[in-house]
Amino acid sequence: MTRFHNKLHADKTGRELFVEAALDAAGSVDNGFRFRDAGALFVGNFTSDVFEGQGHTAAVMADWLGVNPVPAYRIEDACASSGAALNLGVMAIASGMTDAVIVGGVEKMSRLTTDQVTDALALAADSSYETSVGFTFPAIYAAIASAYFNKYGTGWDQLAAVTIKNHRNGALNPKAQFQSEIASIAQKLGERDGRTFKDEMEFLWSDFNPTIASPLRLFDCCPVSDGAAAVILAADEVARRYTDTPVKIAGMGQASDTIALHSRPDFTTLRAAVKASEDAYKMAGATPKDIQVADVHDCFTIAEVVATEDLGFFPKGQGGRAAEEGRTALNGEIPINPDGGLKAKGHPVGATGAAMAYEIFKQLRGQAGKHQVQGAETGLAHNVGAAGASVTVQVFRRG
Amino acid sequence: MTRFHNKLHADKTGRELFVEAALDAAGSVDNGFRFRDAGALFVGNFTSDVFEGQGHTAAVMADWLGVNPVPAYRIEDACASSGAALNLGVMAIASGMTDAVIVGGVEKMSRLTTDQVTDALALAADSSYETSVGFTFPAIYAAIASAYFNKYGTGWDQLAAVTIKNHRNGALNPKAQFQSEIASIAQKLGERDGRTFKDEMEFLWSDFNPTIASPLRLFDCCPVSDGAAAVILAADEVARRYTDTPVKIAGMGQASDTIALHSRPDFTTLRAAVKASEDAYKMAGATPKDIQVADVHDCFTIAEVVATEDLGFFPKGQGGRAAEEGRTALNGEIPINPDGGLKAKGHPVGATGAAMAYEIFKQLRGQAGKHQVQGAETGLAHNVGAAGASVTVQVFRRG
Repeated sequence: MTRFHNKLHADKTGRELFVEAALDAAGSVDNGFRFRDAGALFVGNFTSDVFEGQGHTAAVMADWLGVNPVPAYRIEDACASSGAALNLGVMAIASGMTDAVIVGGVEKMSRLTTDQVTDALALAADSSYETSVGFTFPAIYAAIASAYFNKYGTGWDQLAAVTIKNHRNGALNPKAQFQSEIASIAQKLGERDGRTFKDEMEFLWSDFNPTIASPLRLFDCCPVSDGAAAVILAADEVARRYTDTPVKIAGMGQASDTIALHSRPDFTTLRAAVKASEDAYKMAGATPKDIQVADVHDCFTIAEVVATEDLGFFPKGQGGRAAEEGRTALNGEIPINPDGGLKAKGHPVGATGAAMAYEIFKQLRGQAGKHQVQGAETGLAHNVGAAGASVTVQVFRRG
Repeated sequence: MTRFHNKLHADKTGRELFVEAALDAAGSVDNGFRFRDAGALFVGNFTSDVFEGQGHTAAVMADWLGVNPVPAYRIEDACASSGAALNLGVMAIASGMTDAVIVGGVEKMSRLTTDQVTDALALAADSSYETSVGFTFPAIYAAIASAYFNKYGTGWDQLAAVTIKNHRNGALNPKAQFQSEIASIAQKLGERDGRTFKDEMEFLWSDFNPTIASPLRLFDCCPVSDGAAAVILAADEVARRYTDTPVKIAGMGQASDTIALHSRPDFTTLRAAVKASEDAYKMAGATPKDIQVADVHDCFTIAEVVATEDLGFFPKGQGGRAAEEGRTALNGEIPINPDGGLKAKGHPVGATGAAMAYEIFKQLRGQAGKHQVQGAETGLAHNVGAAGASVTVQVFRRG
């Protein structure tokens, strides 16, 4: 994957970022992989149409990779676009049409202003009944947070704990957009000693962290990012030609839910995440207890809390407390977002699902560097489109 | 499918059009089909983002069809989006993940002005090297036409013959946007007797048919359209539960080519069409001579001429003459676009591939009404994205 960033890639187009990620993927294959070994290309992308004035995105990427005439498919499921692309890549191989494919994701968002990006992202919500009345994603996830606090009697401190944990992880990840702990941000701004968790919490409660959509503050929201990520998928017997230590997609699921939040009986759970994970666990013959590392979709901090419950890691209403207690930290019982998550790693939306697969691949092979989860053999990726109208889950196993 | 039209659907959104098409598809299944019988939904759509201010298109459609939590995938390959969705639907079934899927396509284009639509469609070309210097699709296909005329010493009369033929077919198709022969258009405008092919040709040479991008004139270009189409795909043994006369996808192919026209050695052939059709013929165990009816992608008349050659129906340089000689007419040796083609039926871009499958399904079951090709048992659909950077081909067989 490329580094995720909002300024670093100012001079690069989406196609350039995608090629950089695909070269990294091919170069990571122990015994080498030529792009032409792939029988198809799947590209997850939300809206290069709006972000870059370029559609027909998969054909552009196929051309720039030099893989013509290989068929190229752009998959769009909002922020779950490359999670969905990954599942379709698996199906293409399982169908017998091909035995190896390139799956990637890309988004070049920073050409637009933050206001324009918010509007562009709102295309993923319901244009008829949500965005047309100003209900964009910060507000949608704020409604989820409010409902959650109300139902479980919890509060914003638990979300701040997620922020602190993800920034701590991001500081260890050279691919992350933000590589600063909240402590050092506080120190830089000269406002706090910023040495302890308590200092960090105080900083996040201060005016330096303004409200975006109550109860969500600036540091509850993932940033605007440019970036790309890619993986090579191959049939089991073919993968062993390329490496002695492949990572297997042992199970996968995808589910949909109503596009509008207001159509759902309960805001404090994403039904599609529950269904997609049930399907993935079943296919993998696994349970939540088997998962040793997970990348979950924390576009907003509340989303991580809800995800860790929907995926079965914690009972409903206890995901926030678990974060507060350090149970999801890098050295916790179930490390969540060791790469910093969307919050600190960044969220070039169409690239995120592929970047999660990248992270879990590195983790299960013991190549995650400073943010390595020791000894992890089974991992999970959870990629969400909009407020859960599309969710994909994959269970990965080493070997 | 819905009727394709630019005004009739002014009050409908894309989601309403899609539901209408899907209900038609389910209702066409002899023994009944409930949407919930489908294990996945594939939606071909080019850019609802720009056309309607609504992305996350497949999730919207899944919600409106009431099929949650079934996984929903939006596939974007420019104007070949639903042709690609169809191929991926086949792969999903072949993978064993599901045994029935809904595949459809939709585009609601008419909310924008024609100028805006031209710009939106240009998102499918190369933004860096084509559209940014004004090379939009009428110009791109005009370059193809010029190169073709130059190479084969032919002229515009052959393209006009395609227009006349497709309007003649469209006049027989109640789903077509234009249901008028060129003859009656000429008569209405009071300029010509409009009774003979010669009258029609004279009308098309007149000022009533202005140049859009030389040598292409207005009647060489497909219109702006709203519409949707959908099909039900099922595994062979499952399909027989639903009907005694299924239509089989006997072969399929998809290929990519450079996004920019200028990167190709020859403008007079679409290499991706040649490759995709070779793959589809091979899988079907068929040759071009076996095809008894074909829907080909005539976004511009020159595209139909090139397609009939690339698909192997006629030698290179002779597709235009074949049209002139009536060999592609409804009663010709290989009827091309019996439904009126994109030219007369309309071209809501994301819906076109699915609408081609709809047409061939009806043809092979003898249900095409006034534009029925008698006794057709093998048919073909050819769906092109941009100027051939993505092409899909399916070979269909009755039974």
